[in-house]
Parts: sequence; C-alpha cells; structure tokens
Amino acid sequence: MEKIISLTKRRGFIYPGSEIYGGLAGTWDYGPLGLTLKNNVKNSWWKRFVEGRDDMYGIDAAILMNAKVWEASGHVAGFSDPLVECKRCHRRFRADYLAEKKCPECSGELTEEKHFNMMFKTNAGPVEDTASKVYLRPETAQGMFVNFGNIIDSFHPKLPFGLAQVGKAFRNEITPKDFIFRAREFEQMEIEYFIKPPKDEKEWRPLFDRWVKEIKQWLESIGIKKESIHEYDVPKEDLAHYSKKTIDFQYDYPFKRDELLGFAYRTDFDLKAHNMIYYDEETKENFISHVFEPSFGLDRLVLALLCEAYTEDEMNGEKRVVLKFKPNIAPIKIAVFPLLKNKPELVKKAKEVFAELKKEIQPIVFDDNGNIGKRYRRQDEIGTPYCVTIDFDTLENDTVTVRDRDTGQQERVKIKELVSFLKNKF
Amino acid sequence: MEKIISLTKRRGFIYPGSEIYGGLAGTWDYGPLGLTLKNNVKNSWWKRFVEGRDDMYGIDAAILMNAKVWEASGHVAGFSDPLVECKRCHRRFRADYLAEKKCPECSGELTEEKHFNMMFKTNAGPVEDTASKVYLRPETAQGMFVNFGNIIDSFHPKLPFGLAQVGKAFRNEITPKDFIFRAREFEQMEIEYFIKPPKDEKEWRPLFDRWVKEIKQWLESIGIKKESIHEYDVPKEDLAHYSKKTIDFQYDYPFKRDELLGFAYRTDFDLKAHNMIYYDEETKENFISHVFEPSFGLDRLVLALLCEAYTEDEMNGEKRVVLKFKPNIAPIKIAVFPLLKNKPELVKKAKEVFAELKKEIQPIVFDDNGNIGKRYRRQDEIGTPYCVTIDFDTLENDTVTVRDRDTGQQERVKIKELVSFLKNKF
Repeated sequence: MEKIISLTKRRGFIYPGSEIYGGLAGTWDYGPLGLTLKNNVKNSWWKRFVEGRDDMYGIDAAILMNAKVWEASGHVAGFSDPLVECKRCHRRFRADYLAEKKCPECSGELTEEKHFNMMFKTNAGPVEDTASKVYLRPETAQGMFVNFGNIIDSFHPKLPFGLAQVGKAFRNEITPKDFIFRAREFEQMEIEYFIKPPKDEKEWRPLFDRWVKEIKQWLESIGIKKESIHEYDVPKEDLAHYSKKTIDFQYDYPFKRDELLGFAYRTDFDLKAHNMIYYDEETKENFISHVFEPSFGLDRLVLALLCEAYTEDEMNGEKRVVLKFKPNIAPIKIAVFPLLKNKPELVKKAKEVFAELKKEIQPIVFDDNGNIGKRYRRQDEIGTPYCVTIDFDTLENDTVTVRDRDTGQQERVKIKELVSFLKNKF
Repeated sequence: MEKIISLTKRRGFIYPGSEIYGGLAGTWDYGPLGLTLKNNVKNSWWKRFVEGRDDMYGIDAAILMNAKVWEASGHVAGFSDPLVECKRCHRRFRADYLAEKKCPECSGELTEEKHFNMMFKTNAGPVEDTASKVYLRPETAQGMFVNFGNIIDSFHPKLPFGLAQVGKAFRNEITPKDFIFRAREFEQMEIEYFIKPPKDEKEWRPLFDRWVKEIKQWLESIGIKKESIHEYDVPKEDLAHYSKKTIDFQYDYPFKRDELLGFAYRTDFDLKAHNMIYYDEETKENFISHVFEPSFGLDRLVLALLCEAYTEDEMNGEKRVVLKFKPNIAPIKIAVFPLLKNKPELVKKAKEVFAELKKEIQPIVFDDNGNIGKRYRRQDEIGTPYCVTIDFDTLENDTVTVRDRDTGQQERVKIKELVSFLKNKF
C-alpha cells in the first residue's frame, strides 16, 4: 500500500489534500493521471448503466440539501458512529476500531460510547440559526429520492425505471484512513432502480440477480478480475430492517478485504420516508414503488484498479514497476518517442506522428527525455499500454515500432496503418 | 425569464433544490436534460482547452480545504459582501443591491454595513474547535495554486503551461437570485495559465489576446452568438490591486447584462501568496511565475445557452416554443417515431431503426405517444435537432423522413445511409 501511495503521488495520480498547509485529513486531490483514470471509470459506468439503457435517467442534485431531507431519511437521527474519548489525553476514537477498552495512545480510561453524527453541518444565509442549518449530503441517493416526483412529471416513465447520479458526498469520519478508501470527501456513482411492489421473492429475484450479473460484468470490463471480487451476501440477521437483501461486493485491498460497492433491495423504505407516490396509468393504482440500489464508491474503485494493476516484474533482466491497466481505462493511451532527442529529423517525424495520432486517440503524450529504456520504464509506471518509437528505419520505410507494455514485444507497423492498428487495441 | 424557468422545470432540465421540503435558496438540481446539456458544455470545454492542447494539466482537488489555504489567499480577510440589517424587522440584505437606505420590506431604518464573509464554514473531525474549522471552497482556483508544486514535481512542465479544473464551488450569497445565475452552489471551469514574469506589456499582451480570441471562438462553437457577448475591459481604477488587466465577458440575460466569465491577468499574486517558486532548468533561475486566469461559470453558461436558444415562432400556422441549441450541445440528438402507435409493423421497424442509431449516436429517444404533430412540438421544446419518422413508405422502400427542428423541412433518407447522414450533422 505504501508503494502505491508513493507511486501515485510521485507520478501525478493522487496528492494529499491541502498538503502545503499540513494537509486536511480525509481529503485527496486528484492529479492529471488520477483524474483521467477516475473519469475513464465514470464514463464507462455512465455508458454502461445510463446511456446504454433505455430506462435510466441521469440527474445531478445539489450537495447542499435542506435539513428536512435528512430528518425524513433518518440520517439526522441515525447516521452516526460510536465515539469514545480518552479521559486522560482527551483524544477521540471510533469505538468499533479499538481492540481494547483503553486509549491506544496513552492507555488512559475511555468514556462511554456516544453517537457521533457523521454529517457535515453548515449554515446557509447571513443568519446562523436552526432554520439556516444545512447538511452536506453524506450520500447522493437522497438527491434522487426527493426528485422522484419531478422525474415522473417531466418524463412519465413506466416502472421499472432508474435514476442515476455521480457526484461528491461527505462524511465526517472520526478516523479517515487507508488512503482514498475511507475519506471525508469522496465520490459516489449510485443508481436507484424503481420497481412495482412485488408479491413475493419469485417476482423480484430474477431482476435482482440480473443486476448482480451486470455489476460483475462491468467490473470485469474495466479490469477487475473475477477472482478479486467476493460477494458477501449479508446474513438476514445483519440486514437493515428495511432491506430484503444486500450483497456487498468486496475486494482484497492490501490492508484488508473490504467493501467496494453495495447492492441492496431497500423495499419501499426510502420513497415512503419522502411520501412519494407512484400512479400507475395502466392499472389506475397508487402505490409506493420499491427500489434496488447499486451504490458504487468511485474512489474505492480507483483504488482497487490501482491495486489490481500494480505489478513488480522483470523485463530484459531489469526490475520494473508496471501498472497493468486495461487499455480502455489507462489514463494515457499512447506515448510517442523519437529514438534520439538530438536528431532533428527524428524529432520532426515523431511530432508529425504524434499530431496525427492525437486527432484520433486521446490522451497521448510525447516524450523525448532520457534514453529509450528510461522512457519505457516511465510509461510502464503510469500504465501506458503502447509506446510508439520513431527510429532511423522510420525515415527509410515509414514504419514505426509499437511496444506492448505487458510483454515488452515490439512490432513494426506502417505509419499509414498506425491509427487503425492502435484503435483496434482499445 | 419566468418562461425559461417554467419550461426547464416542466421538461426536466432544472428543478429547485430540496423542493419537496420547501426548497433551499440558491440550490438547483439538474434533471436528465439539464445534466446532459451541462455535460456537453463541460466536455466541449475540456476537449478544447485541455485535451486539445499539449500544455494543460487537468486536476480535481477537494472541495474541503484547510482554513490556512484561505488565510493565505486572502479570502478569510477579504471575501465578503456588505450586509445591512433592518433595525425594525431584522431582515438582512446585501447593501449594494438596495436602491434606498430604508428596508425594502418595512421601510425600517438599516444598520451600518458589516462585512459578511461568503465562505461556508464547517468542522472536520469529532471536535468542534478552531483547529477543525474548514471552508467549502468558494472557487476552484486555489486547488490549482496549492498543487502547483506537485505538478512541477510529477511532470516537470516548461513555462508557459496551465492547470485546469471543473468542479463545484460554494458561496454563501446573502441574496441568491436570478435562477441559476447567482446560486450558493455552482460549478466552475477554471484555468490557471502560468507564464514567465514578463518584462513589459509587449511581452504578455500577444498571449493574453490569443486567450481572448480562443475564449470567443469556443463560445461561438457552442452556440453563443458573437453579438450576444460584450467584452467589458475593466478600467484601470477598478482593477484589483494585483491585476494588470481583466476582461469580463458579459451576456445580455433577460434580467440584465451580467458576467458570463472573467479573464484576468493576475500577475504573481496567487503563487506568491502560497510561496510557490518555479525553478527554470534552462536559465537556472528561481522566480514566481505570473498567471492568466480564464474563469468560466458553468451554470451561467448553461443559462446563457437556454436564453440564446429559447424561441417562440410559428410553424405551419401553429405557435410553438423551440430551443434552438446547436446540434453539438443539444441534450437529445435525435428522436425516433413510428408514424402510428397502433401499427405493430411501424413500431417494430421504428424500434429497429432506433436500436441501430443508438449504437452510433447518443443520447437519442424513442417516442410513440400522441399524434406526430404533438411529438414534434415536444421535441422542439427540448431542442432535439432531428426527428426521424418511420411511416408506411418506410415499409415499402426502406426510407425514413428526417425533420429539421429549425426549418420544419423533411427529407427522405435511405435507412442504410441514415447513420452517416445524421453523423454529418453533428
């Protein structure tokens, strides 16, 4: 894990938030490569689960929401973690993270557990009073539930249909930890998929299982191996009172196996809380629809992809670090090199090839810094799947070498076939 | 303006935030069409100003930042609006919005002006003390300045180069107003473009002017007419002390002419505040680089596009409302209709055509609800540039009609040429 944190900082994936001012625990800034990686995941998800279907509606609700939303949803009363304080040194801890009943810092006695609400509070408007209290959303989900009626009015969708949202959420974790896994500011990709209240399990189970299958297919499509995913079927006695079934998709992170995403059948709990009625035009009935909720943690996915891709191996007798991203989610698709920096004809040709490729495939980079071996290592370390080198043969016969990141194999390709050759790889 | 607000709510572009709980002033939820419109603008901007160049680095910094960032940047001391309170009814107002020195609600006497800081405050961690105080960023810019050093370390860019960021920002406006124009939560697209400290105006002016040109070209490319943009060259005496030159790009909104985006030459003010030194490897010199800042308000752009597109005209003797978006930013690209809903062979064929088109162009919709005239009106109202209708001739000769939103003209096109015919339009 330390190696991944260090690599991602050094190479421009992820930096600690507010770093030059001592940081701010639980916040992270995505650099150019991390942002592109994150966007690739987001876009793939959106294409698959929203644009790729005919029954999904995307929304983008505000982060600041009226406190009443969170009273109705149950978050004001119940969205809390157990907090204890050391009576001697006054440090505070999340009780369920502690192995012992003594302060881990000074062995002092701890207070009784208190409920600490994890929502960030702020005040809107020029007067600080209870009426002006607002919360930063701790999940994107409620933004969809409260807009259920608006979507019905604008689009008249028939059940089943879904709402989807990607956006920031905030949780005032007592102990943010494990890099971007448990942060105070993070990004979610959530779907609320609304169905008619089913009579029995036979009615909802096939649709539920289809979602499970699609989630797994998508995870594989971005490069998380089947074997790395563990479906944890939450036992009945551990389910929230409103949930009929919940599957946690877990991943073996370096620190421990933990939740990558959750998929829950939440019955009519959420829409009931907001008193959202669906009128079925065919049957002329009013009812509260039930909901399936696939909830993806975007940063947790990014972390899983980094863990999945991180590899130390040996190539041509040299040790190397390589991020073996699937080409479709790699932040940089192609690097273009002139073999030598001090040969103007090579550099000129390389810049031409770069410009041609850039019109068709993005993002790509040009690099003429250091010897060719070093440049390959640099691209390996950020997971660039293909490196195109312009050498002296290029000037003779208009071919270039295309080097594969994982095998190190080089192939000569005609420049005029290069775009289609590379496009086929993605 | 009322017409636009009403249309955008009814048809699923933009809803008031937290609406079912009485709303939350200054927050807005983007529905499916508004989100797609906003994303189209965002993507166009990113392609043009980040991916389309070789000197830009995208980042995504956290919204929650250490309070010290805002002390250094000057926001804690100076990011405030003048606030007055009515001594009789205790309502509060932004002083510079008032025409008179009496309360506009009850004509009571007003207090002296106070400085009201516009940053939203919250506390991070389980202890509420000054050390835990954090601010929601009131601009994305500082996230780039504080990461300047990280980018240098990871990428070693040569000057000039830029950082770019798209993301939410929050300002606790005393009086949010004018729909999404002055909201408390909004989205920015900002660039910080770093240059060597120039000797004189001759050195920086050509580059500054090039940015002005590129900004105008981009605005035109998304459909904001040249004549609608007014460049307001801020007079020397009104410039902030650190700015050498600022141009406000203003747009004639229905409520008044106001700022769409700003472009400022901010000298070395920002990097100096954070003590960010650039080491020039060629000249072996240390210096603080200067910065150009094009700062786009995404919601203001969306509003301008809605205003620009909103048209009431007459077609075939019938009044209609039409959003004349440029095809490249229209939220729905194509609507596919079977001429009649109760003819299975038409519906089947229409679904086939829809499925084929959807593979190549997105997002598109299928609509078989109501008579064809009504369906055209519905699509006009949300700005769909092309409607494809499957009629009885289709079954005979495999052609469809393609109707142009702005002219109402219909053209018969062979199904096998339909994808390329439509792709050429975008």
